[in-house]
Amino acid sequence: MTAELVTFGETMIRLSPPEGERIETARSLEFRTAGAESNVAVAASRLGCSAAWLSKLPDSPLGRRVTTELRTHGVEPYVRWDDDARQGAYYIEQGRAPRPTNVIYDRADAAVTTARPDELAVDIVEDAAAFYTSGITPALSETLRETTGELLQTATEAGTTTAFDLNYRSKLWSPSDARDACESLFPKVDVLVAAERDIRAVLELDGDAPTLASELAGDFDFETVVVTRGEDGALARHGGTVYEQPVFETDTVDAIGTGDAFVGAFLSRLIAGEPVETALAYGAATAALKRTVHGDLAVVTPDEVERVLRGGDAGIDR
Amino acid sequence: MTAELVTFGETMIRLSPPEGERIETARSLEFRTAGAESNVAVAASRLGCSAAWLSKLPDSPLGRRVTTELRTHGVEPYVRWDDDARQGAYYIEQGRAPRPTNVIYDRADAAVTTARPDELAVDIVEDAAAFYTSGITPALSETLRETTGELLQTATEAGTTTAFDLNYRSKLWSPSDARDACESLFPKVDVLVAAERDIRAVLELDGDAPTLASELAGDFDFETVVVTRGEDGALARHGGTVYEQPVFETDTVDAIGTGDAFVGAFLSRLIAGEPVETALAYGAATAALKRTVHGDLAVVTPDEVERVLRGGDAGIDR
Amino acid sequence: MTAELVTFGETMIRLSPPEGERIETARSLEFRTAGAESNVAVAASRLGCSAAWLSKLPDSPLGRRVTTELRTHGVEPYVRWDDDARQGAYYIEQGRAPRPTNVIYDRADAAVTTARPDELAVDIVEDAAAFYTSGITPALSETLRETTGELLQTATEAGTTTAFDLNYRSKLWSPSDARDACESLFPKVDVLVAAERDIRAVLELDGDAPTLASELAGDFDFETVVVTRGEDGALARHGGTVYEQPVFETDTVDAIGTGDAFVGAFLSRLIAGEPVETALAYGAATAALKRTVHGDLAVVTPDEVERVLRGGDAGIDR
Amino acid sequence: MTAELVTFGETMIRLSPPEGERIETARSLEFRTAGAESNVAVAASRLGCSAAWLSKLPDSPLGRRVTTELRTHGVEPYVRWDDDARQGAYYIEQGRAPRPTNVIYDRADAAVTTARPDELAVDIVEDAAAFYTSGITPALSETLRETTGELLQTATEAGTTTAFDLNYRSKLWSPSDARDACESLFPKVDVLVAAERDIRAVLELDGDAPTLASELAGDFDFETVVVTRGEDGALARHGGTVYEQPVFETDTVDAIGTGDAFVGAFLSRLIAGEPVETALAYGAATAALKRTVHGDLAVVTPDEVERVLRGGDAGIDR
Amino acid sequence: MTAELVTFGETMIRLSPPEGERIETARSLEFRTAGAESNVAVAASRLGCSAAWLSKLPDSPLGRRVTTELRTHGVEPYVRWDDDARQGAYYIEQGRAPRPTNVIYDRADAAVTTARPDELAVDIVEDAAAFYTSGITPALSETLRETTGELLQTATEAGTTTAFDLNYRSKLWSPSDARDACESLFPKVDVLVAAERDIRAVLELDGDAPTLASELAGDFDFETVVVTRGEDGALARHGGTVYEQPVFETDTVDAIGTGDAFVGAFLSRLIAGEPVETALAYGAATAALKRTVHGDLAVVTPDEVERVLRGGDAGIDR
Amino acid sequence: MTAELVTFGETMIRLSPPEGERIETARSLEFRTAGAESNVAVAASRLGCSAAWLSKLPDSPLGRRVTTELRTHGVEPYVRWDDDARQGAYYIEQGRAPRPTNVIYDRADAAVTTARPDELAVDIVEDAAAFYTSGITPALSETLRETTGELLQTATEAGTTTAFDLNYRSKLWSPSDARDACESLFPKVDVLVAAERDIRAVLELDGDAPTLASELAGDFDFETVVVTRGEDGALARHGGTVYEQPVFETDTVDAIGTGDAFVGAFLSRLIAGEPVETALAYGAATAALKRTVHGDLAVVTPDEVERVLRGGDAGIDR
Repeated sequence: MTAELVTFGETMIRLSPPEGERIETARSLEFRTAGAESNVAVAASRLGCSAAWLSKLPDSPLGRRVTTELRTHGVEPYVRWDDDARQGAYYIEQGRAPRPTNVIYDRADAAVTTARPDELAVDIVEDAAAFYTSGITPALSETLRETTGELLQTATEAGTTTAFDLNYRSKLWSPSDARDACESLFPKVDVLVAAERDIRAVLELDGDAPTLASELAGDFDFETVVVTRGEDGALARHGGTVYEQPVFETDTVDAIGTGDAFVGAFLSRLIAGEPVETALAYGAATAALKRTVHGDLAVVTPDEVERVLRGGDAGIDR
Repeated sequence: MTAELVTFGETMIRLSPPEGERIETARSLEFRTAGAESNVAVAASRLGCSAAWLSKLPDSPLGRRVTTELRTHGVEPYVRWDDDARQGAYYIEQGRAPRPTNVIYDRADAAVTTARPDELAVDIVEDAAAFYTSGITPALSETLRETTGELLQTATEAGTTTAFDLNYRSKLWSPSDARDACESLFPKVDVLVAAERDIRAVLELDGDAPTLASELAGDFDFETVVVTRGEDGALARHGGTVYEQPVFETDTVDAIGTGDAFVGAFLSRLIAGEPVETALAYGAATAALKRTVHGDLAVVTPDEVERVLRGGDAGIDR
Repeated sequence: MTAELVTFGETMIRLSPPEGERIETARSLEFRTAGAESNVAVAASRLGCSAAWLSKLPDSPLGRRVTTELRTHGVEPYVRWDDDARQGAYYIEQGRAPRPTNVIYDRADAAVTTARPDELAVDIVEDAAAFYTSGITPALSETLRETTGELLQTATEAGTTTAFDLNYRSKLWSPSDARDACESLFPKVDVLVAAERDIRAVLELDGDAPTLASELAGDFDFETVVVTRGEDGALARHGGTVYEQPVFETDTVDAIGTGDAFVGAFLSRLIAGEPVETALAYGAATAALKRTVHGDLAVVTPDEVERVLRGGDAGIDR
Repeated sequence: MTAELVTFGETMIRLSPPEGERIETARSLEFRTAGAESNVAVAASRLGCSAAWLSKLPDSPLGRRVTTELRTHGVEPYVRWDDDARQGAYYIEQGRAPRPTNVIYDRADAAVTTARPDELAVDIVEDAAAFYTSGITPALSETLRETTGELLQTATEAGTTTAFDLNYRSKLWSPSDARDACESLFPKVDVLVAAERDIRAVLELDGDAPTLASELAGDFDFETVVVTRGEDGALARHGGTVYEQPVFETDTVDAIGTGDAFVGAFLSRLIAGEPVETALAYGAATAALKRTVHGDLAVVTPDEVERVLRGGDAGIDR
Repeated sequence: MTAELVTFGETMIRLSPPEGERIETARSLEFRTAGAESNVAVAASRLGCSAAWLSKLPDSPLGRRVTTELRTHGVEPYVRWDDDARQGAYYIEQGRAPRPTNVIYDRADAAVTTARPDELAVDIVEDAAAFYTSGITPALSETLRETTGELLQTATEAGTTTAFDLNYRSKLWSPSDARDACESLFPKVDVLVAAERDIRAVLELDGDAPTLASELAGDFDFETVVVTRGEDGALARHGGTVYEQPVFETDTVDAIGTGDAFVGAFLSRLIAGEPVETALAYGAATAALKRTVHGDLAVVTPDEVERVLRGGDAGIDR
Repeated sequence: MTAELVTFGETMIRLSPPEGERIETARSLEFRTAGAESNVAVAASRLGCSAAWLSKLPDSPLGRRVTTELRTHGVEPYVRWDDDARQGAYYIEQGRAPRPTNVIYDRADAAVTTARPDELAVDIVEDAAAFYTSGITPALSETLRETTGELLQTATEAGTTTAFDLNYRSKLWSPSDARDACESLFPKVDVLVAAERDIRAVLELDGDAPTLASELAGDFDFETVVVTRGEDGALARHGGTVYEQPVFETDTVDAIGTGDAFVGAFLSRLIAGEPVETALAYGAATAALKRTVHGDLAVVTPDEVERVLRGGDAGIDR
């Protein structure tokens, strides 16, 4: 097995002015990389799960900036290099009440938007324990809608557990387009992760979170449905049982990437054969730790996650 | 009309060590520009009101650092260049309880302190919809006391609405000197803005805020009196009616310039012909947004101000 | 007259890692703006010539980052704001022998590529003393090829002097495409500026620089032809006479923008009615000074240019 | 008298990534110096008490980095220079709940661990009003255990008041080793400072803080026992009376060094002949101010401490 | 085959003040990793050769800082994690004539100094095409002297080409100790790399470079001897023939790591089956490019190396 | 003896944008302290000579920023604190040919300009081996002209060797004013240091350097005359003999403070009883090393100076 977890999607370069500065007048930008699917791979890799990321990038220093970052965290990038296409980017101004965090996407015509299965290392999907992608990827192009479906199909046929995060982005497509595309993929998905607000806005379901989870499990025969509820924690419905997991108190530096850290840790524990409730707890602890670090990536260690789970206080350790 | 809003006063260079560092041991200083009257012009300009700033500066890179910053935000500087005089400066250590924010003025003998009407582009005051200055300017020199009075007189005679912020600075002059000087200017002022604490400490009036506003309007025949009350918001008395405006919840990065942002936005709406209560709301929303940005200047956009007014939450917009 | 000099073209955001660092591993990027035509406008404006820049930008913080920078240097941007299009960008790694300076363009589908005369403030072109654009702009899209021609036509018909820099970029189009497009514009150009290497590679002319200048003047009836020769200085052919101008010794920090600084200063002196040889000297002195400053822009003053022309040494002035 | 207060112990170089970054991926480290005993000397010196620091350092730029910093704050280092030994260092990642502040010591075989009285300027201990060291120093090596004892003995015999902070560090030694070593020193200590948690964990005493203080005073004949209780303030038992001192509200930037700032200020007032309760208040105010500044050192002034004691609010002083 | 090239040695954290600053007064340090053998592995990896690095590190954020950096450049670290030992470090002040670059080692008792073959992934040495280590490693401890010999023996017995750089460090051991240790290893070395000055100072040989190479080849039966001569380039004696390679003109930013970049590129070409003269040219070009980048690592691409070999000029590529 | 060398003069805060940036557009400034006389004291102190600096400063964080820096380098400041006066400052843009280094003084009415002997610790002048001041100090105010004379008189009467650097600053006074003031002080000066260009421009003497030295020695009965000639080194005439000293080759980072480093080192050797030629050599070596470090101060060590004198090459020392 090349990698226990394989994820597929776009990773962009992330450009952000220092906190308290505006893009309009900034003179320097923090330069990171960020993409839901590779964020998930990094979180899983850092918690000891071998992870690979499948995608298509421009053959340029910008494309290599993405793979360099992933290797730094032990994620093996399986990339189709493209001589002409652009590298997707996004700009983000960290908000402070009453000013929201503002994201400016500049990802049109990125190399990945033309990625077809025949040019990707699909074999690693077949070998993997789990294959993960999210609702962002099919939103990027018609080609990716098809490719996402085909990869989920390949995984399903090979017995690879498939996981999918609804990850609705209003700046990429309308709720109805998102619903059509995602619902067409659901039959090939074993584990669904979705934010409660997205289930209501996109899948147009009602009721409290446990009800949403049951309805989704019923409608689309998911093995596991995880509903994330921001400050109210997350719940998972698996084997007819609903497991609740509150958030861990956290002093936030950067909230971006919290959800992906949760999913990466959650999947790493499932892949390691641990029960859903343990995976939920790992997800919540890793998400809380991720918020204490700048950037999208969960730069944490297994010891630190376990310390949070043990209720270790946040004083000083000397 | 050259500019709808013309402001007159001193703009200094602002030098501050990074947060958590002291001037005594700092190795680098953030280098910005700041002055109540130009801060007001910037806030108005950013909200779509054509604004100009009238003053006198040394003909040096330091003087040009001031005009460069103002042009960046669309404010046209009408400056008398002086070959010999100094550029005023102030040093500011951001405080953290129990350490106050400490301001060290180094503004004695700055070029502006010798500014006389005959060497300033007074015609733009006559053309303007509104002319604004504050209690800091007459505090700087005898010459400026006279010049401030003459410019207010010129504006009044030309039918230009005059606005004046009491802006008491204890490090510049005593309450009694401030009272004498400002009260001598009040007859030429249409719109008075004053912090509640300054009204008590300088103008020695008592009673709650509405009472203070009424007394001032009665005593000096102001069209409009705005009383600002820090965390308790602001109120305006206009045409016999008192309008209240609470603050908007804000996660503060830098409080310096909050008052000027309020005044700039308030005047921009008055100039645009909007009612006082709308102007108050714009002022409060712009002030709240200003506190989320480093430096004195309200680097915000009309959309952002309107979003706050619509009660938009401060989550993430993607 | 709105502006003595009006320039038309694309201005991108410029992102570069600190010197000695590679994009692949950088964690922060210097964030500036840069575009040949606005660089020229800035150089002219800083030397006292009123300048405006005509273009089309996305209505976003990135678009405003461009206009904010131009206003900082006194250039008035006349921009058509576009709600949907991208902001062009380029990444630049400063080279050091034997590693060349590497430019990565990310400018496809930028807002400006769809700019048509009917959505631009064409009247300021008619009012201007001179209108400038360069060979980069028509290289960006078919629409811009037409628009560039129409604006040059408008200028010519209004009696506005037209200036054009060949500015060949191999990463944008082939020599032959460049030749066809530019030669179709030449009849509407009064002042041609071209690098000697571009004249040979694109216009396929031979002979030494004076010969090239004469041939071009003969073939296309240019009033003035300026041939730039890097370290060997520049020459101008005007009224049958050839004027030579050597470079000024310079200790280079950042060579990018040298040519635009030369053109901006050259045009500012022509517009001020000075003879060609004075304009050449101003161009060379401003270009030398520009190389001592980071970024594309000639952040210099008239005094500094005149000091270089007076042969002032580069010691210390205290 | 060379110095009123002499302190003895190890000062390390302190290396920390910017907040929100991890050592694993950081590219730059803040570079300061830090050591309990020299932190105490700096706090005392800044509050007007002449202070000296006694130790042993490598004769290298790293050793001089330590003495340079101390001189910056008026502390005179009396150092035995060692040509071969290492400079102790520690790395610290500022934590954010739920991630604790993580300290990585790299101090084995530091020059100071071999410091013997015969190679130190012991005479300044005899001349001093007070001699201070802490439980960290004897934890570092057998030699230092002996040297600490001998210096306390020397001080006692010379009539110099001796002060000792239990300062238990779990990463340096076990509670029982700490108890044995420290209790062997107690007979030579006049003033004991100890954190409540250390008294319980190391000295294995029970009861509330006043009780702990009395027991300790009884058992070891301390003149003064100070028990520090983090957010619950501190108390001192002196001449049979117990004085309580709450903390001052503080908006913390960096908590490291809070205890040393308290001790330094406390000792400086005792040395100045002020009563214990005044010394306690000075300690608490200085500790609160220290938390508003990055790094271990209390970079504050007497005026600022007195302002806190007067209950000055933390607004803006202009 | 796990990796074509396996290298064995110590990698330290590298701490350096900004250029023009001294350690004594610096407030921040650039934080990189550096070690001859891992530098070589990175250079080879970046030029397309699969590379692994074998060593022993402390199981701490500092140890992981080393492996993180190597993975960033595609080098797979095979590390024995040690719970107690230190992480070696070195401080470096970039010199400027007449001040030399000053290196302060702090590497005593680093985890690697106790590395024994039985705790290392020796199998990857047996599988490799080439195994590389240098004269620094045996200088660090008696254990490493033995382990280096055993690994060279293992490689030789498995038919893995062995390469060794004399890499004499005067701050680690005397010329005579170095000679004894290295000469004891030479019989297990196929490819010797040595600086001309080290051959004279350590191996006490005389004559010009070709003569030195021949003598060494004769005395120790090396397949290939490479003599590096700083600005005078390098030569290699292989199969009785001597190949000369001049340096490429370079505008140096950071000379540290030049030799390792040369060796890594040289070995990568040998492993790829290319002739010695090609390997020499690759080495020289990569070394020249490395000097244009801060830090020890050759952050370059194959295209860039080949461009230098093609004599591409260092202008601007746009 | 309090200090072997006592210097008297103004020390300003020094504010400079990063290299390649202009004050007009900079966002941060390097924040150092600088003054000829304290620069000299620092150089002497770093070479082992006990040094004190005598002056008058504002009692503010800015004043303390000056004393803090001096203590860092072992110089004891003897300062009269002034509650009201300003802290002198200067802004400096590092030049690059053809742009000169530009200094903007902002030192009018600084606290020191009112310094009278009766408020200074004049006793340390009487105790010192040498007292140094320069032509900058009397240029600052009438009061300082008198005070400088009185302190030189006091030194002379106490048998303290007096040293004076002409240090002409064209931005402070005219050549003739400088000549009158300095020549009135010469009778109280034992050791004169002067730049060759200043001797010609201010003292209006002609002839080559040795001739200038002899004439000055003859006219004013100096014990020693040192003539500094920039890149042509320096010469000293002492006891009728002229000693020549060339410069040491240096790769300059920051030339400011070179002269003061020379004088500080020169005086430290004279005070140590070494012959003039040794002092000259120390001065030249220290000046060369100073140019390799940012800022005014010679942050060097005796070993480094002696290494330059031994002709140590500037390679790498590891």
